[in-house]
Amino acid sequence: MKVIWNSEIVERSEVRIDPEDRGYQFGDGIYEVIRAYNKQYFCLDEHIDRFYSSASKIEMHIPYSKEELKELLNRLLVETGVHTGNVYLQMTRGISSPRNHMYPDAAVLPMLTGTMTSVERDADQMSKGIATIVTEDIRWLKCDIKMISLLGNIMVKHEAHKRNAEEAILHRDGIVTECSSSNVAIVKDGKIWTHPDGNLILPGITKIVWKKCAEKLGYPVIEKPFSLDDLYDADEVFCSSTTIEVMPVCKIGNNVLFDQVPGQVTMALQKAYLHEIEKQCGKLK
Amino acid sequence: MKVIWNSEIVERSEVRIDPEDRGYQFGDGIYEVIRAYNKQYFCLDEHIDRFYSSASKIEMHIPYSKEELKELLNRLLVETGVHTGNVYLQMTRGISSPRNHMYPDAAVLPMLTGTMTSVERDADQMSKGIATIVTEDIRWLKCDIKMISLLGNIMVKHEAHKRNAEEAILHRDGIVTECSSSNVAIVKDGKIWTHPDGNLILPGITKIVWKKCAEKLGYPVIEKPFSLDDLYDADEVFCSSTTIEVMPVCKIGNNVLFDQVPGQVTMALQKAYLHEIEKQCGKLK
Repeated sequence: MKVIWNSEIVERSEVRIDPEDRGYQFGDGIYEVIRAYNKQYFCLDEHIDRFYSSASKIEMHIPYSKEELKELLNRLLVETGVHTGNVYLQMTRGISSPRNHMYPDAAVLPMLTGTMTSVERDADQMSKGIATIVTEDIRWLKCDIKMISLLGNIMVKHEAHKRNAEEAILHRDGIVTECSSSNVAIVKDGKIWTHPDGNLILPGITKIVWKKCAEKLGYPVIEKPFSLDDLYDADEVFCSSTTIEVMPVCKIGNNVLFDQVPGQVTMALQKAYLHEIEKQCGKLK
Repeated sequence: MKVIWNSEIVERSEVRIDPEDRGYQFGDGIYEVIRAYNKQYFCLDEHIDRFYSSASKIEMHIPYSKEELKELLNRLLVETGVHTGNVYLQMTRGISSPRNHMYPDAAVLPMLTGTMTSVERDADQMSKGIATIVTEDIRWLKCDIKMISLLGNIMVKHEAHKRNAEEAILHRDGIVTECSSSNVAIVKDGKIWTHPDGNLILPGITKIVWKKCAEKLGYPVIEKPFSLDDLYDADEVFCSSTTIEVMPVCKIGNNVLFDQVPGQVTMALQKAYLHEIEKQCGKLK
């Protein structure tokens, strides 16, 4: 399989990461996951913008223009021949040798890698929903940066997995923030509530799209913190991310079950989201 | 230079990290830095115990016994010929391909790497002290795990560097926790205060040693949270870690300067700490 390695497209087997790469020793890097449908990226500009924004927040210089990155990603799509799938794009600050907390000087080149995987849309899961658990948000206080120091995220994801759930809904002192790898929203009396952007959650690109859909459909979106009580009392709950799109929650823990999954608002958003995909990427089969 | 690569000692140039190693994509790994003096490790058992403890806290299985790890580390010391230096030992959970938040199953082997660097004791710095800044503790809520998702740590270290300081003293809502890569303690009226172990700080091995020294010297050690006001009002402040030992702070920000550096208690602890090193590793030149 072909992959991105710095400014080239190479065979995956050629890629070699140094053990003193700062991504490997400090989690000092950023990433994006971008979805492709019909051999076309969806929301590519938004993802590239966020990649640059994450880099800027950790003072990492990206030695490529946005156009160069997009061209590289498009070449990867062509050369891998993937029809529907995800590209995982990562950049680290490069090598510090010997290991040193301090950022290296500008002469050290960042390390860019990108891999493509075929993944179909999971329409079955989108109609059934996912099971979730609720657990404490143990992550750091800069969750707006899409970075690779993700141990806090994978620990809670693992906790969900052990409890037979797909996703963990996180809270800080009873206020719901987001999930381990998605944003979360609740629906109550026809209104949609979701945590405001800021340092406690990732500014979701899928969220931008469904907010636009909600506006068109006439559902008010309230971006204010809401509590665990609000979560348990919601009419509908859904998660959103690049890979799961608009995903209904069918269960929270063992006791909170939703009658109709997807709920009416969630289903309307799913359909409108699919429409947005088709506008950019063409009709899906 | 020879390095540890899983159960072998190999040339560094042979080591190849996969771009889908979970250490590289998720910061999913643990580490230790162990100091050697006179070709002997200091507090090796304590470091190995903490390595196992960190692994256990993230449910990572170490496929080596403690004796095997120690033997590997001792072979590295012999084969590199390093007299005074640091070994950096890291283990990640191995490869998830394609990228997947979930921990891989038990068949996936963790990746162990270890590199040795010659580093002399910096007696000059230990007599002059280090400059520090104070900044918010933005890290996650499991700081007792010595893990490689360190972006929060290096960001504050970088902030210190930009403000011409060597270390960042961290606080949560005005309570001092520790520094970006060391524990911190204050001395007031002959008593030593330091944050208690728990989820907010790393249980320092150097701290274990200086606490024992303090006990012998008759200085009470109070392991209770203390405030920024207490910090600014202290008679002495010192940091401690494997690499900097007992390091006096000469300055906090631009305005807080200490008269006598090292202070009396800090100097007594430095001497007693050196004595502990010499008991284990032999007389230092």
